Amino acid sequence: MDVILVWLIATSASILALVWAWRFHHQMMLADEGTEPMRAIAQSVREGAAAYLHQQNKVVTVVFLVVTVLLSVAALWLNVLSVFTPIAFLTGGLFSGLCGWFGMKTATQASSRTAAAAKDSLDSGLQIAFRSGAVMGLTVVGMGLLYLCVWFAILYYFVPLIGGEEARLSLRQISITMLTFGMGASAQALFARVGGGIFTKAADVGADLVGKVEQSLAEDSPRNPATIADNVGDNVGDVAGMGADLYESYTGSILAASALGVAAMSQQGVLGEGGDAEAAQLQAMLLPMAIAAIGIACSIAGIYAVKTDESLSQKSLLKALARGINRSCLWVMIGSVGVAMWLMPRVPGTLLLGVVPGIAVSVIVGLMAGWLIGWWTQRVTSDEYATTQHLAAQAETGPATIIIGGVADGMMSVWLPIVIISSAMLLAFGFANGGHFNDVTRFSLGLYGVGIAAVGMLSTLGITLATDAYGPIADNAGGNAEMAGLDPVVRQRTDALDSLGNTTAATGKGFAIGSAALTALALLAAYVEGVRDGFDRWGRDVASQVTGEGSYKINENLLVEKTPEGTQTYLILPSRPQTTEQTAEQAATWRQLDALEPIADGVLASSVAGQRVDIAHATLQDFLHYFDTTLMNPRVLVGIFLGAMSSFVFCAMTMRSVGRAAEGMVLEVRRQFTENPGILDGSVTPDYQRPIEISTKSAQHEMILPSLLGLLLPIAVGLLLGVGGVLGLLTGCLTSGFCLAVFMANSGGMWDNAKKYVEAGHHGGKGSPAHKAAVVGDTVGDPFKDTSGPSLNILIKLMSMVSVVVAGLIVRYSLVAYEIF
Amino acid sequence: MDVILVWLIATSASILALVWAWRFHHQMMLADEGTEPMRAIAQSVREGAAAYLHQQNKVVTVVFLVVTVLLSVAALWLNVLSVFTPIAFLTGGLFSGLCGWFGMKTATQASSRTAAAAKDSLDSGLQIAFRSGAVMGLTVVGMGLLYLCVWFAILYYFVPLIGGEEARLSLRQISITMLTFGMGASAQALFARVGGGIFTKAADVGADLVGKVEQSLAEDSPRNPATIADNVGDNVGDVAGMGADLYESYTGSILAASALGVAAMSQQGVLGEGGDAEAAQLQAMLLPMAIAAIGIACSIAGIYAVKTDESLSQKSLLKALARGINRSCLWVMIGSVGVAMWLMPRVPGTLLLGVVPGIAVSVIVGLMAGWLIGWWTQRVTSDEYATTQHLAAQAETGPATIIIGGVADGMMSVWLPIVIISSAMLLAFGFANGGHFNDVTRFSLGLYGVGIAAVGMLSTLGITLATDAYGPIADNAGGNAEMAGLDPVVRQRTDALDSLGNTTAATGKGFAIGSAALTALALLAAYVEGVRDGFDRWGRDVASQVTGEGSYKINENLLVEKTPEGTQTYLILPSRPQTTEQTAEQAATWRQLDALEPIADGVLASSVAGQRVDIAHATLQDFLHYFDTTLMNPRVLVGIFLGAMSSFVFCAMTMRSVGRAAEGMVLEVRRQFTENPGILDGSVTPDYQRPIEISTKSAQHEMILPSLLGLLLPIAVGLLLGVGGVLGLLTGCLTSGFCLAVFMANSGGMWDNAKKYVEAGHHGGKGSPAHKAAVVGDTVGDPFKDTSGPSLNILIKLMSMVSVVVAGLIVRYSLVAYEIF
Repeated sequence: MDVILVWLIATSASILALVWAWRFHHQMMLADEGTEPMRAIAQSVREGAAAYLHQQNKVVTVVFLVVTVLLSVAALWLNVLSVFTPIAFLTGGLFSGLCGWFGMKTATQASSRTAAAAKDSLDSGLQIAFRSGAVMGLTVVGMGLLYLCVWFAILYYFVPLIGGEEARLSLRQISITMLTFGMGASAQALFARVGGGIFTKAADVGADLVGKVEQSLAEDSPRNPATIADNVGDNVGDVAGMGADLYESYTGSILAASALGVAAMSQQGVLGEGGDAEAAQLQAMLLPMAIAAIGIACSIAGIYAVKTDESLSQKSLLKALARGINRSCLWVMIGSVGVAMWLMPRVPGTLLLGVVPGIAVSVIVGLMAGWLIGWWTQRVTSDEYATTQHLAAQAETGPATIIIGGVADGMMSVWLPIVIISSAMLLAFGFANGGHFNDVTRFSLGLYGVGIAAVGMLSTLGITLATDAYGPIADNAGGNAEMAGLDPVVRQRTDALDSLGNTTAATGKGFAIGSAALTALALLAAYVEGVRDGFDRWGRDVASQVTGEGSYKINENLLVEKTPEGTQTYLILPSRPQTTEQTAEQAATWRQLDALEPIADGVLASSVAGQRVDIAHATLQDFLHYFDTTLMNPRVLVGIFLGAMSSFVFCAMTMRSVGRAAEGMVLEVRRQFTENPGILDGSVTPDYQRPIEISTKSAQHEMILPSLLGLLLPIAVGLLLGVGGVLGLLTGCLTSGFCLAVFMANSGGMWDNAKKYVEAGHHGGKGSPAHKAAVVGDTVGDPFKDTSGPSLNILIKLMSMVSVVVAGLIVRYSLVAYEIF
Repeated sequence: MDVILVWLIATSASILALVWAWRFHHQMMLADEGTEPMRAIAQSVREGAAAYLHQQNKVVTVVFLVVTVLLSVAALWLNVLSVFTPIAFLTGGLFSGLCGWFGMKTATQASSRTAAAAKDSLDSGLQIAFRSGAVMGLTVVGMGLLYLCVWFAILYYFVPLIGGEEARLSLRQISITMLTFGMGASAQALFARVGGGIFTKAADVGADLVGKVEQSLAEDSPRNPATIADNVGDNVGDVAGMGADLYESYTGSILAASALGVAAMSQQGVLGEGGDAEAAQLQAMLLPMAIAAIGIACSIAGIYAVKTDESLSQKSLLKALARGINRSCLWVMIGSVGVAMWLMPRVPGTLLLGVVPGIAVSVIVGLMAGWLIGWWTQRVTSDEYATTQHLAAQAETGPATIIIGGVADGMMSVWLPIVIISSAMLLAFGFANGGHFNDVTRFSLGLYGVGIAAVGMLSTLGITLATDAYGPIADNAGGNAEMAGLDPVVRQRTDALDSLGNTTAATGKGFAIGSAALTALALLAAYVEGVRDGFDRWGRDVASQVTGEGSYKINENLLVEKTPEGTQTYLILPSRPQTTEQTAEQAATWRQLDALEPIADGVLASSVAGQRVDIAHATLQDFLHYFDTTLMNPRVLVGIFLGAMSSFVFCAMTMRSVGRAAEGMVLEVRRQFTENPGILDGSVTPDYQRPIEISTKSAQHEMILPSLLGLLLPIAVGLLLGVGGVLGLLTGCLTSGFCLAVFMANSGGMWDNAKKYVEAGHHGGKGSPAHKAAVVGDTVGDPFKDTSGPSLNILIKLMSMVSVVVAGLIVRYSLVAYEIF
């Protein structure tokens, strides 16, 4: 295998994605922007969105600078991090931010053009909207993969070129260093998702409560001062927020899989006789990038398969989108078998039919899992199925029953996604390591399979994100058509597109949660690699402080050996209980070693009660054993409790934020109506800017507390409870957070569609008591599905990412490391 | 220490509790039952409650017989269970059922008498209501402790007396056998809590939606056909359900602590030089019972401390109750220090000040934790504090905002209970084992501390349950006074009592959840003891099938040795990775052993690659290591996912059940009003029986599915994923379920009190739009706080209990045991 070849393929694919993104953008910009009022409306939305991003970027810049300084201290002064991490943190945030900026630019340009194209035909409208969505999809995957390729080249090629051979990093160091590079994207995603989510729902709820409920204005009425803010919100939350979220999942999954691949191939004995470990590590590291490259090609091809005829039915539109996605998936499946056969090191016992590495099935499992979760989300939230129709019927007995029903149905809908993710994990694990669930040697290989499944699920992100970003574009196109007073047939077409957008948005949310869960699982496993790196840094740091050669005791369970060949750090695994005499003897021996005097060889053998394991060759289980990360360890249990708690508290924070922000919006809209009665009769144009400013300011203000929770909790838990506590925290947050996220997203989607179902004339139709009850359900569902639910994805991943980055700190400076606790 | 002395103290205390329960009951029965209408109303409620219990007992009997047959098969045919378990299952269910029956009898007798006594003075009313509540409290603790004492006597004294010395069970066997005896109470509690919860809310929602909302009848109006059903529901759900729930926690915590105590003292090296392990085990086993005995005495004394003057203020009433509880707590703290100094074996390094065993602090930690959670629940749900007052203000902007606010506040309120339980666990663990968090030898001792903390928390159950059962009695007394048209001053007094009851009910729910969590934690640890017993049974079973002496291989990781002295089972702990040659050699050796031929000694040594650990001396960590119950094991992770899922699905099921049952009730009440218009003008007495029958039938029908989830999921997960999967399941269910239960109970309580706050004249008062919105919140909260939330307690404990009982089955017949997975 030629490294440079794979690297070139991946880099080309990423550039290909960016080129196609540019092409689609260019095509869209050439399209007719419509009439003067349409342009003016689009211009307002664009300005609002730009103003929001500008304000958000100011806050984000400050946060990034602060964090960069802290990371630099950790890297340069404490020596618990790679020196590249701070700069990678900045560039990661920058790339992610660029994606959001570019995607939103495109979306806000596309809405009026979609409305204008819908004047010609439904397909023209679909093409503009969908391909503009594809700009977002392709930008995310292109920027993501390019970022990884560039950094790989720097660390693998340029560092030894500039620093000489002694500066060369091992593959393990490269993979772990790069793993910490995901944090920039995580932080950016947090602000985009949480801030965007609060913005959009504050505007939406404000616009609805005063405009629609109090003043009985129509949806998207230009007389509603919050209507532009509402449209801006769609772009800010659903385009930029969703993009940043999935950008993070995308890069995170590739980085985690690469790190796990290197770890799996470093495992002694895994390759069998005569295997070249170095080459295998490289192959396993590059495989995720190669799968991503194939995914990009297949996504672009799939985008061209999306076409529809003039039939307005939801079914035919869905079929058009499904055709694109399904074809991409199929091609990726075929391609991944090929690339796995080409790149995957041959591990004895994991080959299917003797030739196909089982890891190829892991890719397929990931793809299927993503597809299934999307399907299920649509199945439970779409008003074409029984669940939502039945929920709509409960509106007849008032708001209380539809709320109880929606909460119950949402909670019930959790079961299948859990079963899917659980099965995907077991299958991806089992196929990757040949079904050897109990084989310590191949355990990391199984986890690599889970990481690869996450990569597989996200490989077609170019097209799946396109269907997602398409939603708000169609939604805004509808708003534009309404406000500009276009021909009813146009509004009918944009409505068809918008209705499709609601379905794809629900599917997209399911997909986002599913991919976040699988990515977080991979990051959880990769975290242990971060811990290994932390021990390695600690050992080398201690060795650099002592002069003589020999063995040194760092603490009761850690030993460092300095030899002319280099430094080796050893874990002393806890042994089975010893007799009291042994313990006393050991303690006596240990005490002699405190003064950084090397230990005589004879003493060493007798003094180390547990098994001495070289850090570089320690298995994953060794680390877990070392930290006693079993379910009975109170530190681990407390971690799980705190993780579960954090997901509930995070939801509460984001929901309260929406409540507070919406309150400000309500007051502002009421003020405008009172001070300018002309707004209501259409004689005065309302001040659209003020609501945007209010939403922007609240969003910036309200996103601080939840962000701090996500950033600081893993560090606090780590310092107090050590590595075991952190693993518990991540597990608790992942499992509870996943359930909560699915519940909230689905409940919200159901209420939304139940309302639409009632509005379509069922159970009394618009204006009936059932409709009023359904509107209450929809309003409750708004922060559920658009703020708290999706933000949980980020919380789950961010906590993992922060834990990985600070692993070195926790290993060295936690109360556990100080042997206090 | 004299075993018989401790046993006599515990037995006497339990009889003392029953005698006092009888005394309070007798005193109450002597009180004036009031006027004729009052008697008639009370009679209706009594009949309804009796009818419900009768119907429930029919269903429960069938279920109990089926389960008993299955348990008998497991015990007698598969030999994976003690032969005593099936009979203990029946008697446990019977005792628990008797408690519920007796408590409910008392409550339904007490309500009219409370109303009658309130004619004299507030204190008289409080005395009748509270002491009738105490009947429930004392019956639960008396029956619970008596049950345990009787079984201990049977297993410890009578079995060797009748079966001879060879039938004598070791203390470990006794403690594990008795641990499985909690399942009868668990199953009974499930039916009582879930069935009762569905009954009460179906009646409540039905009565409210048609009677109050559609026909504008007053609360407790005799013209509402569902009003008696509503009053019955209070007794069925809040008295019988709550009693069964806490009976289960009470016995479960003592059983778990006893089992953990024996395990901790069996640990080699824990007692230091010259410790008598047998005596220490006995002491550690009896300590929880002794603490329970002290708790009973202190509870009875505390009940007498509850007195009030004629001031109607909530504060003075609360102070009266708090005085009783606080004094009991204080006395138990002092007593537990004494009893710990008397009974607790002296473990080196765990003595405070050189004399007080740290375990005494664990008792205090448990008591404090229970008190704190109760305080917090009151703090966030009472309308005397800012949280609920602020929530009430959100009713002004409509039902949607109060729902969003209540969900957010409820989720936020999770944080402190989690912190309390986490801290309690760490402190109880740390004090019990002298702060040696990393010492394998003393690990079980720490878990024993957690078990003892649970016992401590529940030790004052006699009085805390009294304050809880008091609530529905006061509530019914108010209903009785209203329906019988008593003097307004009486209604005023019963209202004061009722309002206090709402606060104590909220506190009681918090306490129930907290104690369930701590009990479940103890059961989780005790589960491993069940697993040990399962291996032991398996080994002895295999040994009984072979004729020759020597070592036999059961599977790759299990070895049994038959010698003239007896049978010894060995775990082969997984070793660190071996070279390929070693593995091949080992495999070759193993293969010879498959045919149940004993292994030659020389071959044995070389053939066992991992460490051979005798089952009897295996530490907890050995088992966890054996099953690789680390957080990275996909089986464990899947288990945690499924556990989290089960709590959400269980909530969904119970909420849907309430919805369906309420629907039937709504139709029935409407039917009565339509068919008998005379009901509304008071000329015709409505048919009170039909609604009771409907609620009863729905409750029986609807409780089946959630019950099956709780009973079957641990078995299914165990068979598929083995012991690691079960531990994951229990952890996931405990952590997510705890958060969900706190969230739902608190949200429901807040909405209830926010409504009351609005009704008290704030934000527009009764009839205002804010009031309507608050009523929606209250209705949504009803199933949250009275069905799903409290039922989760049972789910958490039942799953643990079922897992303990079927541990032997899972150890032997899971896919993992068959080495398929």
